[in-house]
Amino acid sequence: MKPVKVGLLGLGTVGCGTINVLTRNGDEIARRAGRGIQVVAASARDLKRPRNCDLSAVRLCTDPFEVVNDPDVEIVVELIGGTKPARELVLAAIGQGKHVVTANKALIALHGNEIFTAAQEKGVTVAFEAAVAGGIPIIKAIREGLSGNRILWLAGIINGTGNFILTEMRDKGREFADVLAEAQRLGYAEADPTFDVEGIDAAHKLTILASIAFGIPLQFDKVYTEGITRITREDVGYAAELGYRIKHLGVARRTEQGIELRVHPTLIPQRRLIANVDGVMNAVLVKGDAVGPTLYYGAGAGADPTASAVVADLVDVVRALTSDPENRVPHLAFQADALSDIPVLPMDEVQTAFYLRLRVQDKPGVLADITRILGDQHISLEAVLQRETDEDAAEASIILLTHKVREGNMSKAISAIQQLETVIAPVIRIRLESLK
Amino acid sequence: MKPVKVGLLGLGTVGCGTINVLTRNGDEIARRAGRGIQVVAASARDLKRPRNCDLSAVRLCTDPFEVVNDPDVEIVVELIGGTKPARELVLAAIGQGKHVVTANKALIALHGNEIFTAAQEKGVTVAFEAAVAGGIPIIKAIREGLSGNRILWLAGIINGTGNFILTEMRDKGREFADVLAEAQRLGYAEADPTFDVEGIDAAHKLTILASIAFGIPLQFDKVYTEGITRITREDVGYAAELGYRIKHLGVARRTEQGIELRVHPTLIPQRRLIANVDGVMNAVLVKGDAVGPTLYYGAGAGADPTASAVVADLVDVVRALTSDPENRVPHLAFQADALSDIPVLPMDEVQTAFYLRLRVQDKPGVLADITRILGDQHISLEAVLQRETDEDAAEASIILLTHKVREGNMSKAISAIQQLETVIAPVIRIRLESLK
Repeated sequence: MKPVKVGLLGLGTVGCGTINVLTRNGDEIARRAGRGIQVVAASARDLKRPRNCDLSAVRLCTDPFEVVNDPDVEIVVELIGGTKPARELVLAAIGQGKHVVTANKALIALHGNEIFTAAQEKGVTVAFEAAVAGGIPIIKAIREGLSGNRILWLAGIINGTGNFILTEMRDKGREFADVLAEAQRLGYAEADPTFDVEGIDAAHKLTILASIAFGIPLQFDKVYTEGITRITREDVGYAAELGYRIKHLGVARRTEQGIELRVHPTLIPQRRLIANVDGVMNAVLVKGDAVGPTLYYGAGAGADPTASAVVADLVDVVRALTSDPENRVPHLAFQADALSDIPVLPMDEVQTAFYLRLRVQDKPGVLADITRILGDQHISLEAVLQRETDEDAAEASIILLTHKVREGNMSKAISAIQQLETVIAPVIRIRLESLK
Repeated sequence: MKPVKVGLLGLGTVGCGTINVLTRNGDEIARRAGRGIQVVAASARDLKRPRNCDLSAVRLCTDPFEVVNDPDVEIVVELIGGTKPARELVLAAIGQGKHVVTANKALIALHGNEIFTAAQEKGVTVAFEAAVAGGIPIIKAIREGLSGNRILWLAGIINGTGNFILTEMRDKGREFADVLAEAQRLGYAEADPTFDVEGIDAAHKLTILASIAFGIPLQFDKVYTEGITRITREDVGYAAELGYRIKHLGVARRTEQGIELRVHPTLIPQRRLIANVDGVMNAVLVKGDAVGPTLYYGAGAGADPTASAVVADLVDVVRALTSDPENRVPHLAFQADALSDIPVLPMDEVQTAFYLRLRVQDKPGVLADITRILGDQHISLEAVLQRETDEDAAEASIILLTHKVREGNMSKAISAIQQLETVIAPVIRIRLESLK
């Protein structure tokens, strides 16, 4: 089957990220979607700017309407941002019966009602997973994964810049203005940081989340919005002393009187998982009446994470275009005839770090014997802890953390260690993963 | 449009939970799915057992094949568990061209390849979100939400019983056998806990996750499986001392040599979010090449959380049966003609707790004046902290945490407090959410 042809509006970081992901993972994506996905046309204001992606197979132009009108283009991906001319472009694409994928939160929050009405009339999809919380599939989780629930409330850290600033203020005792300046140097914050630090970006995203959670129209103008510019080092410190962390949250809650929609700095108990979401990361906590609390965590911005969501939307649209309508998503994610026969590794070949605990006679040379055996198996140590466990019996515990090693080598080492006369109990062995 | 008719196999806790969720949230579910979902028939071994759900509209029988063969039943929900007769029942339903929803991890891990082949031939869907991590939509997240990624690895706490035991061992310094006995009393662990504590249940779930992550057939027999029965209080303590927590993880990793599939106790750095997933909760950490690390957290078991996943699968199937095939999931989760006009609350009506910080003259009666004003607005206090900030100038900071209060009342109180001569700087006010 021929690849689906896509037109990109905008070749900034996310546009290039999308091209890179589609190229790099082209085979896997086609195995999942049942068809390849190919960017055939793209528009950008300045075609001469050097870019971090391969555009050799892409027709380039400066007028985004040219891409929308290109008869070759089946799906339009809008990555320009802002509402003008994004709204006109998306409506024009819909008018031509083309599906649209967009990462544009302002567009959806402000003009989504109009856009979805137009899309419904034309029978096309406007997909917008990338508009909220970057690579986290939060739209899909709420819209499809929690569809059995009455959603009671949700609370999200949905602006990475703000979370980076608050995290630095807490960890390093710095003041707001100081960290903001650094975030701007690092490229986490825009030259004009208003949208991020005043909560407008978060309010756009909250508008969208509330709508899909509660089944209400998009109502950006009703969101109460308060920024983080007045948070001081002092308040961060007192909050910590009381057992809380300050996070910039978007909160949507169903009450008997109506829906609460609000973005503001918030103290939350530090033992909550979401209180420990730090730096530029995003997380959304959703409470449903059946499922209880659920949390979704990941990168909320950046070229590749946002492209991850854009491509997932593309795959959804392609699956709908292509498959048997009653069986759109393959059972095992990949098309049944596209499963792979990569072997499963025997456990002896697996590499992990290890925690070892040994009970030994507390006499000279014991540790030397053990480390020699480990060395023979190419096992190096990260940490050693020795504790006298029974003074009368002259027994001690030795705890070792190793660097990564083949399981087979570790098993051999443990067998040899177990032979030592000074080792007086079975060696305890627990694997260790840094999960980085 | 007429409701879709569903037959349930099994009326245990999850079966009753499913009926309860479908009844309680029937309106919202129909607004999402575009049609109602009605359980018309169900089978159970013992029809006389008292049950926690309303079965008055359900035809009951003891033979599950009767439900499968019922011409009225369009979707079969298999909640019997185990592989026999679940396999035969699911294959029979597929044979009749019926869609199937199942929560049965053993069935999918052991017989999924055969079942999906049969389903594909018949053009029906076998949905199994509830088979892994209960209410967390992890199958959907990986299969659809991360479809643009090359998945590099995943690591999950996917057995709630095991995680409860390890959490109790750490928090209370208790031994394994002791906590297991309590878990059995609380109903978290089965009378025969082998499947949970030996890692077999986790290995079933890991088999499924690895398959959809990497596009490989289901291969339960190749999972290395090690339980938590030999973890001691001592090891939990030493791990903590070294900055780690011990979790029972299922790990699937892509390496150049092949796929690692393993379930075993694992030390993980305590600063990782997943190291802080405690009690019976589940979480899965998935790392994609584009999106980076993402985490999905929620209840991994229980009647309502599992029912949440079962109903989400039902909604998916109903959406596929019903909607325009190119536009299956409504843009805003609910059908466009089923949006609600619940009002958005004015901020003055919103209730939250508050953190207040006041700079005051350090003299007698100041705190009394402040608390009197708060009392007049029905605001009660959770905590008070007073700190001298400038001894020479006789200035102090007063930090107050309040209980929940209407925003409007708080604004009035703050205005009044601001009028006090002893309050010498603008009152700092940050909202507080317990997120429970």
